Formats: sequence, structure tokens, C-alpha cells
Amino acid sequence: MRLVTYATAGASRAGMLVDGAVHEAGSSVRELLATGAVPEPGEPVEDARLLAPVPDPQKIVCIGLNYRSHAEEAGLDAPETPTFFGKWANALVPDGATVKLPTEKTDYEAEVAVVIGAGGGIGGYTLLNDLSARDRQFATPQWMPGKVFDGAAPCGPWIVTPEEAGDPDAIEIELRLNGELRQQGSTADLVHSIPDLVEHLGTLMTLAPGDIVATGTPSGTGASRRPREYLKPGDTTVVSSPTLGTLTTTLA
Amino acid sequence: MRLVTYATAGASRAGMLVDGAVHEAGSSVRELLATGAVPEPGEPVEDARLLAPVPDPQKIVCIGLNYRSHAEEAGLDAPETPTFFGKWANALVPDGATVKLPTEKTDYEAEVAVVIGAGGGIGGYTLLNDLSARDRQFATPQWMPGKVFDGAAPCGPWIVTPEEAGDPDAIEIELRLNGELRQQGSTADLVHSIPDLVEHLGTLMTLAPGDIVATGTPSGTGASRRPREYLKPGDTTVVSSPTLGTLTTTLA
Repeated sequence: MRLVTYATAGASRAGMLVDGAVHEAGSSVRELLATGAVPEPGEPVEDARLLAPVPDPQKIVCIGLNYRSHAEEAGLDAPETPTFFGKWANALVPDGATVKLPTEKTDYEAEVAVVIGAGGGIGGYTLLNDLSARDRQFATPQWMPGKVFDGAAPCGPWIVTPEEAGDPDAIEIELRLNGELRQQGSTADLVHSIPDLVEHLGTLMTLAPGDIVATGTPSGTGASRRPREYLKPGDTTVVSSPTLGTLTTTLA
Repeated sequence: MRLVTYATAGASRAGMLVDGAVHEAGSSVRELLATGAVPEPGEPVEDARLLAPVPDPQKIVCIGLNYRSHAEEAGLDAPETPTFFGKWANALVPDGATVKLPTEKTDYEAEVAVVIGAGGGIGGYTLLNDLSARDRQFATPQWMPGKVFDGAAPCGPWIVTPEEAGDPDAIEIELRLNGELRQQGSTADLVHSIPDLVEHLGTLMTLAPGDIVATGTPSGTGASRRPREYLKPGDTTVVSSPTLGTLTTTLA
């Protein structure tokens, strides 16, 4: 099953994809995830404009240094227990969005994201691009100043529920910059697997339906290249996964 | 003016204090702050039970190392630009709450918090206790694993709006642990002042009405004592300010 949030007059609604078309499925994806039930698809929605799959999550948890290849290129050890930072809802934009670069040292990070479901378990998966202003990220002891700008979390295109996504340890992901392959990985390579992350985070705090957990990025960031290469106005990033779809972002 | 959120059957409502009594003032404090208007107080609410003043903020921004005295005791330099991490709504509890200690190395941090109002400006002030599980905080490169447990952000008792709070650079705060004075400071001592923080954060991201910005803690944390002293079940912390009121928390 694939769940979406779409825009309607002055509000957002939950929908599900049936044969590629958006059908009505309730008032919010957070509520659908909280029930854990499969909704009965309602009427098809003409010209549905997709929003971020959960536009108003209580939490966006971003796991850092969770691929050994990326920790190595960042010159850091992968931590024994997961490290994380947060983003807020102002960062979320849907597939197809244009994001204004906040600084001249802004970078991409392709990530598989888990969406929390009923009882704090795995409700589904989506894609997230953890856009990062490296200059702000490393200017202070905490990384968040570089991680929170408006549009810093392109997310989508939809939520794929576990029965369709299959093995959480075999989700492939890649990122192309202007068509050129830059990142390629699989959740098989995660230091802390998706089931382990969800279980561990649940011991630290109560996870709510609709919470988003971005699980870390594989190697190949622009900051790791020599010379370093950052995003420029006009660039297009495409994060994709055979399981989860395609998330396209244009930088401006 | 003092704004509160109070519990009513199955929901929360906005109120304002008039001569110490809660009066109806609308459906949400976030909406009140967004308008920037002074509400007309409605009927008094019998036995109003106060919640955290904004129970569902889009953001809880926690500024780190913003008193030189605390940066020194932590053995770190106060950063030239503000460093920050986040908490989420699961951390918020009101005045009078009991919070379960997540680990045996949990500490207090008394803070003056700004609540964002209309147009991303200062909507008011409240108190926040940035409870911190030090073992989790320093186990990984980012501090957030120690900062996000349920109840990690006691906040309240209410929002004091700027015309009543007076000079943002002269708000005094102290914390007593079981009656003993442990922390004492004034926003006059902040490395980055409240107006500067709000202005700077607004250049990094869009601030929304109801966002909470905790502005850092003065010296006197338990982790800075020799031997170190952490919170124990049965302890009571009282954060207080002549301007902003009193925020009491019991640890369990």
C-alpha cells in the first residue's frame, strides 16, 4: 500500500494510490498510521497535488554516521549507539519542490526514512534528502544550525507500507546529481539496522505515528569530493529506490 | 498579559490569567500568538488544569553554551554563533509534573525560554528546565540522545507577554534543588542576547508562532559539581523568576 498526503482547498488530506491514481483515504496520514488499518479507498482525486507524505510530524529524527562508508569519508567513527539530530516541519517539502540554497556550501544526503506506525513500530518507508549547509553544520559543536533551513528535508514521494516494501534490510537507494550517479547504498549496509533503530529510539522516547526517522546517508556526498563540490542554483537531485520511488528536488 | 493552555474534556484550550484566574481565550495559544492581538477574556474556567503553555509547538530550539559561566564549567568555549539542538513535543510537561528519570545521570538546566509570536518576533517568555541525561548526551557526537526523553522539557507555568515582562536583557532566573539554591543568572549575562537569538534564528529558518527557544543555562549544573551530583527519585526542582513565575518538577 502507498499512502500520500495531498493538498485540497486550504487543507491537506490523506490518500492512497490505487493503480497510480490518488484516492481519498481520510483526514490525515498520521491518523491512518495510528490505526494501522488498511483504509477503504474512496473517490479518486482529480489532479491531486502531493505534499510531503507526513507534512506535520511530531518528530523528524535524523540518524548520523550510520553507513561506515560515509563515516569514513567524514573522518569520524561510526558511533556504537546511534547519534542523531532533528529537523522541524519547516524543512519538509514534497517531491518536485524547488529549494533555495541557504549558503554556497550546501550538500545533499540521500536517505531511506522510516515512518512510525501504530504502537511505535514501523508504519512504512519513504525517501528523504537531508540537505545540509556544511558551513553552518560545522561552525558550532552541534550540527543542527546547518540542517534546519526551510526546505532542508525534501521527503516523498509517498509512504510504502511494510508488506509492500519487503525486507527492511534490503532497501536500495541512490542519488543522482544532474543525472550523474553520486551515492549508492542499501539498508543492508547500515551500522544500525532499521529494526534496531526503531527499537532503540523507542527506549529513549515515545515514538508517535507519523514520526519520521531518516536512517543516514551512504558515501558520496559533495563535501567528501576533492575538490569539494557543493550544490549550485539550477542543480537537480534525484533520490531513488526500486522499492520506494523517486524524489526529485531542484535547487535555486 | 499571561497566556496559558488548559485541559478540557478531551482537548486543550487557550486561556488568559485575570487576577490569578484562568479565563477562556480561544482554541489555541499558537493561534493567539499568530494574531498578536490581545484577546478579550471570556468566562472564568473552574479548576483549570494547566498544560505546557504551548503543548504542540512546531519547534523547540535549545541554545547551548550561552552563558560563559556554564560553557566554562562544561570545559567548552562559548561558540561565536549560537549552537543549538532540539527537543520534541513528547518532552513537554507542565508546572507541577512528575518526570521519570531516564538514567542515573540525569541533570537539571534552568532556562529562560522565548515563545515566538506574530511575524517571527518575540511573543512572550516562559521557563524551561532542559533536563539532560548526561550519559546519553555525551555518548555520541550529538547531544540529542540525552535530551529527548518523555518529560525532558518541563515548561511553564504560563507565557508572559513582552509588555509585562519588560527588558529582555534583564530577566532573572534561579533553580533550587530540594530548596537549595543551585543556579542563578540573568539574561543580562547571555553570550547571545534574546533579541539577537530570535533575529539570528530567523535568518536560518522560518520561525512559527508558538515555537519555543530555550536560551541556555547558567552555571551550577549537577554535572559541574565535584563529585558530580545527579537527580534522584523524590527530588524536586523549582525554576523561578520574578518576571516569569515558578516551574516545579518532581523526579521519580
